[in-house]
Amino acid sequence: MAKDFVKRSENYSEWYNELVVRADLAENSAVRGCMVIKPYGYAIWEKMHDALDQMFKETGHVNAYFPLFIPKSFLSREADHVKGFAKECAVVTHYRLKTNEEGTGVVVDPEARLEEELIVRPTSETIIWSTYKNWIKSYRDLPILCNQWANVVRWEMRTRMFLRTAEFLWQEGHTAHATREEAEAEAIKMQGVYADFAEKWMAVPVVKGVKSPNERFAGALETYSIEAMMQDGKALQAGTSHFLGQNFAKAFDVTFLNKENKLESVWATSWGVSTRLMGALIMTHSDDNGLVLPPKLAPIQVAIVPIYKDAAQLPSITEKVQPIIDGLKAKGITVKYDDRTEYKPGWKFNEYEFKGVPVRLAIGPRDLEQGTCEVCRRDTLEKVTMPLEGIVEHIEQLLEDIQNNLFQKALNFRESNTRRVDTWDDFKTEIEKGGFLLCHWDGTTETEERIKEETKATIRCIPNDAPEEEGRCIYTGKPSHRRVIFARAY
Amino acid sequence: MAKDFVKRSENYSEWYNELVVRADLAENSAVRGCMVIKPYGYAIWEKMHDALDQMFKETGHVNAYFPLFIPKSFLSREADHVKGFAKECAVVTHYRLKTNEEGTGVVVDPEARLEEELIVRPTSETIIWSTYKNWIKSYRDLPILCNQWANVVRWEMRTRMFLRTAEFLWQEGHTAHATREEAEAEAIKMQGVYADFAEKWMAVPVVKGVKSPNERFAGALETYSIEAMMQDGKALQAGTSHFLGQNFAKAFDVTFLNKENKLESVWATSWGVSTRLMGALIMTHSDDNGLVLPPKLAPIQVAIVPIYKDAAQLPSITEKVQPIIDGLKAKGITVKYDDRTEYKPGWKFNEYEFKGVPVRLAIGPRDLEQGTCEVCRRDTLEKVTMPLEGIVEHIEQLLEDIQNNLFQKALNFRESNTRRVDTWDDFKTEIEKGGFLLCHWDGTTETEERIKEETKATIRCIPNDAPEEEGRCIYTGKPSHRRVIFARAY
Repeated sequence: MAKDFVKRSENYSEWYNELVVRADLAENSAVRGCMVIKPYGYAIWEKMHDALDQMFKETGHVNAYFPLFIPKSFLSREADHVKGFAKECAVVTHYRLKTNEEGTGVVVDPEARLEEELIVRPTSETIIWSTYKNWIKSYRDLPILCNQWANVVRWEMRTRMFLRTAEFLWQEGHTAHATREEAEAEAIKMQGVYADFAEKWMAVPVVKGVKSPNERFAGALETYSIEAMMQDGKALQAGTSHFLGQNFAKAFDVTFLNKENKLESVWATSWGVSTRLMGALIMTHSDDNGLVLPPKLAPIQVAIVPIYKDAAQLPSITEKVQPIIDGLKAKGITVKYDDRTEYKPGWKFNEYEFKGVPVRLAIGPRDLEQGTCEVCRRDTLEKVTMPLEGIVEHIEQLLEDIQNNLFQKALNFRESNTRRVDTWDDFKTEIEKGGFLLCHWDGTTETEERIKEETKATIRCIPNDAPEEEGRCIYTGKPSHRRVIFARAY
Repeated sequence: MAKDFVKRSENYSEWYNELVVRADLAENSAVRGCMVIKPYGYAIWEKMHDALDQMFKETGHVNAYFPLFIPKSFLSREADHVKGFAKECAVVTHYRLKTNEEGTGVVVDPEARLEEELIVRPTSETIIWSTYKNWIKSYRDLPILCNQWANVVRWEMRTRMFLRTAEFLWQEGHTAHATREEAEAEAIKMQGVYADFAEKWMAVPVVKGVKSPNERFAGALETYSIEAMMQDGKALQAGTSHFLGQNFAKAFDVTFLNKENKLESVWATSWGVSTRLMGALIMTHSDDNGLVLPPKLAPIQVAIVPIYKDAAQLPSITEKVQPIIDGLKAKGITVKYDDRTEYKPGWKFNEYEFKGVPVRLAIGPRDLEQGTCEVCRRDTLEKVTMPLEGIVEHIEQLLEDIQNNLFQKALNFRESNTRRVDTWDDFKTEIEKGGFLLCHWDGTTETEERIKEETKATIRCIPNDAPEEEGRCIYTGKPSHRRVIFARAY
């Protein structure tokens, strides 16, 4: 199956695009920029959804659902927000079609023009804050800790499956608070939840940090992000959490009576991760043999392939395998026993390898005699013959090892591709090699934009744990107090 | 809380609308016809989602995701389908806004007109079958058993929360098969899954039947439905499953090589249930005191309210209650211990009653002395004082009893409001009383439409279990071989 599959070193971008399609994760649709998420890809997204949803609920959040459409005028209410989101979006202008004159198709009915155009939500701050206005009267109604799982549309000109698509799936949390401190703490808490999810479930190490003003969400006072490094050394912003101040409350006139019976504007946060995480997952772990999935998000964790020459041998293999299947399932491990007769074992091996199934077992007549089986782990492609005795416990441990190994490998990669750079000449050379460059920066948007123009590198974040350190801006030489991360990014 | 709450007998329609809002299930939004599903309402929908999703997976289905938008021309491909769905829909014509000349807001950018308009999906047969064309080459690729959880938009003129909204949430299954028999069996199987879900989870008894040609899905050869009876005697179609024949395969040129290596068109089904089920749930069980929820779908199954005069008494109550909470949770029962001090017990009782929490416990100082508590069940409003000893097991049983009781009550109601009617004069009188009328019908669309014009009653379905019985059509007197169900419907 991995035949003719392009290598990462040959063409990383093509490798990614081809992998997404050949591993049955997604494909482009008949609608420009919109993808079809295929069952195998969707099964991974479902696991992400379930894990995140549980983490949100454990931190006190509830789900709700708000309209797909936003009245055009709502977008203009918050001045920065409209600049960021009102530009490339899908606009609904009519609500009816009619049969054309020839009777051969349908045309838009000009009589059915909407009084006010509706925008397909690119994000839901405006429609949600127009709703919260009715929910909030007093401090007793606060906090509101809502999350929504939804589709959103941003009319991107250059799209790539999972990474940047016109329509994508995401969750967006929108919280309302009585105090600035509480809202800020919430935004930081959710950044932490995202980092935990990325590291513990996706096995993707991330840097937690704050965005520079230039890279902030349109309408936010502060944007907290998690940044991951892909195997080509580029950065990928995997999730953001915004402290919105009172901007949206003021735009939609949302006030509350505080304990002292005085009217105040409400404080807000919003935070989201999307199907873009699928792109991060794929690009962090996969290799020239196809997809590599961390066990915690793999739709199939263990594939078992019986090997036989004569169909008559199958029942005795199945009989031996059944207790292993039962034992694995009892431990909550997802197993696929692939006893299809239309496909040969070699074909099946390739299939599971390409689709990133963490562990593959093979069991044939000789194994039956010797009470063994072959265990192959996807991350290292290492194969060992093991006794069937204790195999269930061995696999359980192996899955944990693979999960940890993938994280450690990605962490090592990131660390060996993170460099301190102190001169502009070095910067220009080093940025070509990819990776994260830790540099001093004078804190101005102007400098950031010039660096971007000259090198395509942006400030990914100011890491939360960046130590104070006196230095000089890499570009202007002006004083700086801590290093920030520069990188080229997806 | 139930003060000023309108009674069902006074104004059933207003009772429903007010209940939805006052029980915090949903509210109208700033966008015409679109609702906001509030956290409490969404929590019920999530439980429905989870139960249905599991049933779909157990019957071999997988989830996937297809684009929100459908190119306008796709809708015209299947002749009947376009008649049914191309009329009232949201049409995207532009992909950009720009700042207006005054700089005070945004306007649609006339330069950014789409070459072909996009329709916000009212249902996804067309976009999915255009995708399946690439997935299906041979009989080995069949069956495809996909489901999608999504939002859809139908530009309804008269909307009511949950029952009929412009945007709604639903699932739509779309399956592809090699043979007619297999596709028909699938459509019937999914009708069965829906009926099981309605009866076992929602405690809503349903009639399984076939739709008359007039009421079929646009593009189907046969529509199987489940029909429920609301407390005002009107019918509500709670789910439909369609056998689509080869209509969509032919419209999108989807063929496969069969085992004999001959090219054939693929056979199809589609099936869906939506947030409309929330309407059915609410209208089947709720009463003049508010919402009544079957325990299996209640976000909170048991509420525990401590009663004390002096805040110093609270810790000793909490100490006594804690093992009950732990015991209930260990059995997978959702408990809320409401020890908020801002609200009085009476207020809390009303709150849980209005929100349909199946079981409410109250425990006060005298209970502490006597080792008892008060148990109130929402369905009958019956209150009993019980020993704390064995209370967990008692509640577990009580929840099961309530679930069964709600189903039985609804079934009794339906049975006592289902009548055989044999003359047209009787029909005209009986239909005014509401309920299901079992009548003979001559099988023609013409007769069905006349009856609808004269009485607003439609044929809900031809029940699967309708016995053969010779009779005369209620309207034309022509011969008929079985009775069908007539009713007014939502």
